[in-house]
Amino acid sequence: MNVDGKPTRTIWVAGDGVVAIIDQTALPHAFVVRELRTAAEIARAIATMQVRGAPLIGATAAYGLWLAMRADASDAALAEAHALLLATRPTAVNLRWALDTVAGRLRGLAPAARAAAARAAADAIADEDVAINRAIGTHARALIEEIARQKGRAQVLTHCNAGWLATVDWGTALAGVYAAHDAGVPVHVWVDETRPRNQGAALTAWELGAHGIPHTVIVDNAGGHLMQRRQVDLAFVGTDRTTAAGDVVNKIGTYLKALAARDCGVPFYVAAPSPSIDWTIDDAERIPIEERSPDEVTTVAGTTAAGDSARVRVTPAGSAVCNPGFDVTPARLVTGIITERGIAEASREGLARLFPKRAAAAKGDGR
Amino acid sequence: MNVDGKPTRTIWVAGDGVVAIIDQTALPHAFVVRELRTAAEIARAIATMQVRGAPLIGATAAYGLWLAMRADASDAALAEAHALLLATRPTAVNLRWALDTVAGRLRGLAPAARAAAARAAADAIADEDVAINRAIGTHARALIEEIARQKGRAQVLTHCNAGWLATVDWGTALAGVYAAHDAGVPVHVWVDETRPRNQGAALTAWELGAHGIPHTVIVDNAGGHLMQRRQVDLAFVGTDRTTAAGDVVNKIGTYLKALAARDCGVPFYVAAPSPSIDWTIDDAERIPIEERSPDEVTTVAGTTAAGDSARVRVTPAGSAVCNPGFDVTPARLVTGIITERGIAEASREGLARLFPKRAAAAKGDGR
Repeated sequence: MNVDGKPTRTIWVAGDGVVAIIDQTALPHAFVVRELRTAAEIARAIATMQVRGAPLIGATAAYGLWLAMRADASDAALAEAHALLLATRPTAVNLRWALDTVAGRLRGLAPAARAAAARAAADAIADEDVAINRAIGTHARALIEEIARQKGRAQVLTHCNAGWLATVDWGTALAGVYAAHDAGVPVHVWVDETRPRNQGAALTAWELGAHGIPHTVIVDNAGGHLMQRRQVDLAFVGTDRTTAAGDVVNKIGTYLKALAARDCGVPFYVAAPSPSIDWTIDDAERIPIEERSPDEVTTVAGTTAAGDSARVRVTPAGSAVCNPGFDVTPARLVTGIITERGIAEASREGLARLFPKRAAAAKGDGR
Repeated sequence: MNVDGKPTRTIWVAGDGVVAIIDQTALPHAFVVRELRTAAEIARAIATMQVRGAPLIGATAAYGLWLAMRADASDAALAEAHALLLATRPTAVNLRWALDTVAGRLRGLAPAARAAAARAAADAIADEDVAINRAIGTHARALIEEIARQKGRAQVLTHCNAGWLATVDWGTALAGVYAAHDAGVPVHVWVDETRPRNQGAALTAWELGAHGIPHTVIVDNAGGHLMQRRQVDLAFVGTDRTTAAGDVVNKIGTYLKALAARDCGVPFYVAAPSPSIDWTIDDAERIPIEERSPDEVTTVAGTTAAGDSARVRVTPAGSAVCNPGFDVTPARLVTGIITERGIAEASREGLARLFPKRAAAAKGDGR
């Protein structure tokens, strides 16, 4: 999407052996591009969350193998780089998938051919992410256009950051917003700030602003009230993992917005690229929810009036903190799941209709 | 309630012509008592939110008239002090009620008798608030005891600060928690941080900790997940205004927690001292909701690692912000309204059964 009018991806090849990324830890206060030249620099960028978002992490790690192979294309170096990159964010599913995909293509090749093959494989992973998201955007755009046709403008609410910064380009939940806006459809986005990490306030607000899309930041508490007062036409969120039955694991707080949407008659859509659908899981209630660092709750990061980065404590020193990172939105609250193949009903049957082979393969696992 | 084992109110007379308050803007990082000696100092304490919470604002303003009468008990001085104090927080209902109550008693008196009468009237307002809250606590405590009897411990979730800091003592939503704890009933409180002003993280967490009550701070997004995973037995919130039909105006985000409570089968109670019931309003959908300063959303206040107060910006400079202060929780989501006279069904009939005269008087208004 655009930054100051210039089409930009979150990651690109900036020269021979040079991978460029947007340093997302500097957003929203500064737009910093970093050039990475070694697998170690790539690993550090992932570990320190300069890049984040499952699809973007996968693509970044793939380029890390390219940089590693340029320096040393031996089997030992390949294994070492794979391990180094995999250790950066142990729970990210796309990370392992991207590394295994690239490494699998390299193992059968002579070392001299590996760097070029790794570059091609990483490019393919990045381009496939863009293609999936663009397709999701086409389906979501139709929903936005229909509202705008009726009302003159569509008002969308989103939670966390499932925009282009979380992917290589377009985003998942926001792909339809970009597609509609670029087609001249009037759309405005309510942006949940998304405590504790404030990805909405910091990242979603920034990327919408950079592309020129009208948006308004609200605290996470406000979305229900806006739905009650009919100021939200559609809710679009992303997903970290969606079960075969259509239950949605996403950023903590998603469930509360889905409840309000149901109570107020607001359609609630989940943008789910098919790789985020877990065909092996039936019972979302049993998915363990990651408990994250208390520091995310006790302190808030930002910039002072003088422009310096700072972190302030908001809780008493003696108070305990609990910080679950995700929650589960039951399928019954989800109007539809927007995939690259179209919009599925949030149910086993609905998802299997769009992805019959994958659904059948998972059943064949003997579950 | 206790601060370091010492019973403490939020406001008290500390000597002849001296009113002491807890400076709530310094919490949770410092416990600062301020002594106020003039009506102007009282007005400043209210305007700068060193004292906040409708019942506490009313009592504080009442003591402001006492200090004014000690300096000059003329009719002109009374009118001037009334106007000065009323202007501090124009929308607070209790503020006008308390000032009118005290001033009404003084107008018929000779100036020489006014200071003593003002002191007595202010004391009565403070003591009545404590008595109402203690009664609410008795009713709420029974609910907590029943859970603890079944499960060994009760887990309560609360939003914002409706604890003793918002009142003269005991609080409203937390009165039952204090009563249960003091009776030896095991109780643990989940504290919503309550963005944008973080009254939960700053005030509720502090007051529970100061009294020695086990509690855990969570972001506003987390409460639904905890209810889904059966870690919440009861929800208790306060109210700024409750309609005659049982709809509840309270801090933004209350509605989302009520939805989650309903979805998960968690009883959701509203503690409403009878003065907060507005018998004249039928349709909560039409209550105008105060839009507050964008600064509350764009910045967060706290202390740095060095212990200095600081405010950091969390949103991009160019992003618009919307900051509704309250939302409406429909009566259908409220399990019961806990008043000083007992627990009412959240309906016109339920409230009228406990307060027949007031309900009838409002009807007699010809609405």
